[in-house]
Amino acid sequence: MTVCGIDLEAEKQAKEHQNRLTKPLGALGKLEDFACWLAARQGKAMPDPLKPHICVFAGDHGVVDEGVSAYPSVVTGEMVKNFARGGAAINVLARQCHASLSVVDAGVVSDISDVEGVVHAKVCAGSANLARKAAMIGEEENLALQLGRTQARQAIASGANLLIAGDMGIGNTTASACLICELAHGDVQDVVGHGTGVDDDGRVRKVDVVQQALKRVGDIQPQDVLRELGGLEIAAMAGFYLQSAEQGVPVIVDGFIAAAAALAARAYEPKVTDWMLASHVSQEKGHQIALEALGLEPLIDFNMRLGEGSGAALIVPLLQSAVALHREMATFDSAGVSEKDG
Amino acid sequence: MTVCGIDLEAEKQAKEHQNRLTKPLGALGKLEDFACWLAARQGKAMPDPLKPHICVFAGDHGVVDEGVSAYPSVVTGEMVKNFARGGAAINVLARQCHASLSVVDAGVVSDISDVEGVVHAKVCAGSANLARKAAMIGEEENLALQLGRTQARQAIASGANLLIAGDMGIGNTTASACLICELAHGDVQDVVGHGTGVDDDGRVRKVDVVQQALKRVGDIQPQDVLRELGGLEIAAMAGFYLQSAEQGVPVIVDGFIAAAAALAARAYEPKVTDWMLASHVSQEKGHQIALEALGLEPLIDFNMRLGEGSGAALIVPLLQSAVALHREMATFDSAGVSEKDG
Repeated sequence: MTVCGIDLEAEKQAKEHQNRLTKPLGALGKLEDFACWLAARQGKAMPDPLKPHICVFAGDHGVVDEGVSAYPSVVTGEMVKNFARGGAAINVLARQCHASLSVVDAGVVSDISDVEGVVHAKVCAGSANLARKAAMIGEEENLALQLGRTQARQAIASGANLLIAGDMGIGNTTASACLICELAHGDVQDVVGHGTGVDDDGRVRKVDVVQQALKRVGDIQPQDVLRELGGLEIAAMAGFYLQSAEQGVPVIVDGFIAAAAALAARAYEPKVTDWMLASHVSQEKGHQIALEALGLEPLIDFNMRLGEGSGAALIVPLLQSAVALHREMATFDSAGVSEKDG
Repeated sequence: MTVCGIDLEAEKQAKEHQNRLTKPLGALGKLEDFACWLAARQGKAMPDPLKPHICVFAGDHGVVDEGVSAYPSVVTGEMVKNFARGGAAINVLARQCHASLSVVDAGVVSDISDVEGVVHAKVCAGSANLARKAAMIGEEENLALQLGRTQARQAIASGANLLIAGDMGIGNTTASACLICELAHGDVQDVVGHGTGVDDDGRVRKVDVVQQALKRVGDIQPQDVLRELGGLEIAAMAGFYLQSAEQGVPVIVDGFIAAAAALAARAYEPKVTDWMLASHVSQEKGHQIALEALGLEPLIDFNMRLGEGSGAALIVPLLQSAVALHREMATFDSAGVSEKDG
């Protein structure tokens, strides 16, 4: 399959509709832009209200052996249990924006097969240590991509018209930094940040590890980067984005990890970014670099750095408001309001 | 009365609670900051969910005689009818964030006394032309301030714990520019913008009119600025802010007009800003200058310039999410999630 095209005629009609609403031309700024963006993607001048679905993919990273994270790998599985019980940030935010939520074990080290409310689809128990060898073998990468595709397909079949991929994986800022250095041509020092909270010494170790990994892979093709330097949940997110774009359903890209996954998806299919909207810019160094490479502009800057899809879920109500304004506001004609002089 | 104090102990407890939630320290950025800000103002470590009320004050401006607006004064009354019928942007946004909404005729030129769903409290039929004389006489200003106070008092009595003042008034960006030049010490060229959409010639006229008005009043006291250069709906908004701060209920400040009203309120009571949160930064020149003078940092920049309280209403769901995260997330203890290494 290929990426779905967008409907420029619907976008034009949406813009004309915006210009008839009872407000000065353009006075709703980015809310107008989003309504028209969505019209082009839903293929209708009057877009449907958003039915968001959030899918959180969890996976562990062999690279934590290098001391790159402030938390131990066991936390990934513990957080999946927290998601399953509804106690994590993304659960709260999904409730706030009336999104459905699924939680997927794409490759958690811990055995969490007895946890209810989780999609058990573990490709393997964590990626390999990317500082020393490929993070995934080809079959693992393919299974993870397919897993993401399946989740997107199912969400769309259930009626979702806006998709969000979230991540959970101790160590995944290191893998994402590698992807962003390779695929957005970022400098290691600019891209590597403090992740969940390593101190300055920890960050120096992360920089060393990323440099070691980049040196190991040398001059590789973009399509090999995900397998060599990514992770299972990141590959699933990339598959999720590819499937969404092929089926013509927009996605909101979350933070640093999501941007790395988006870059990985783009390495397979350049036009996948037509279906992406950036939510926030993370406090994590390098997110802005990744967004610029993707050609995406974040809507908010809230100093967040949590992952889980939290930044993307947070902005759903703003987008929902944009759609409601487009659909529900009176026009100058219908309201009997005088138009601009002259 | 004086402005209510804030509860620093509740803020400290809220911060400690945030640090126990299942996320890296500080990873929710401004959402954490807002939850603690609200705790200090509600006086409880676990703040109540937000019950927002929006009050849109409408008034006309004699200064439109100088050709400073792209729309005729009749539009103010027409838009009030649009508010009463639920067709304006603020109606849609109030529905989206589950806010109650009241619409107040503080000084509309048109006779709209037969319109249902409007608080009919017209002080007079529009302000005087501030380029040539005081916008209001003392009694008019006092009545408008009291009107705003009454609206805030009633909303609080009805259970609102978050207040938003919106504006509707053709010509009010000119009055607001005057207030911001005087009270935020802005330069006329930096503060005067295109309002609802005057062209470059129109903006040159606005600059001339503002300069004329500033020259007319000369070196005046801050407490005389509102009466000389403001307007009826702006004075009502200032009264609304003062009453909220005295009763200890936070407000979200909307755009350019709201910031001018906030500066006017501060001229009467410096600590009123303790109870203010800035929502967005407007496309209208000079809003940033006003916010800096108020010591407020806007949460979003969506290129909006509509007024009506729209920017403030738009961000309510973000704040509601911040409160829900604070109240509903599991702690490391309750979720059995391991804390940071070391």
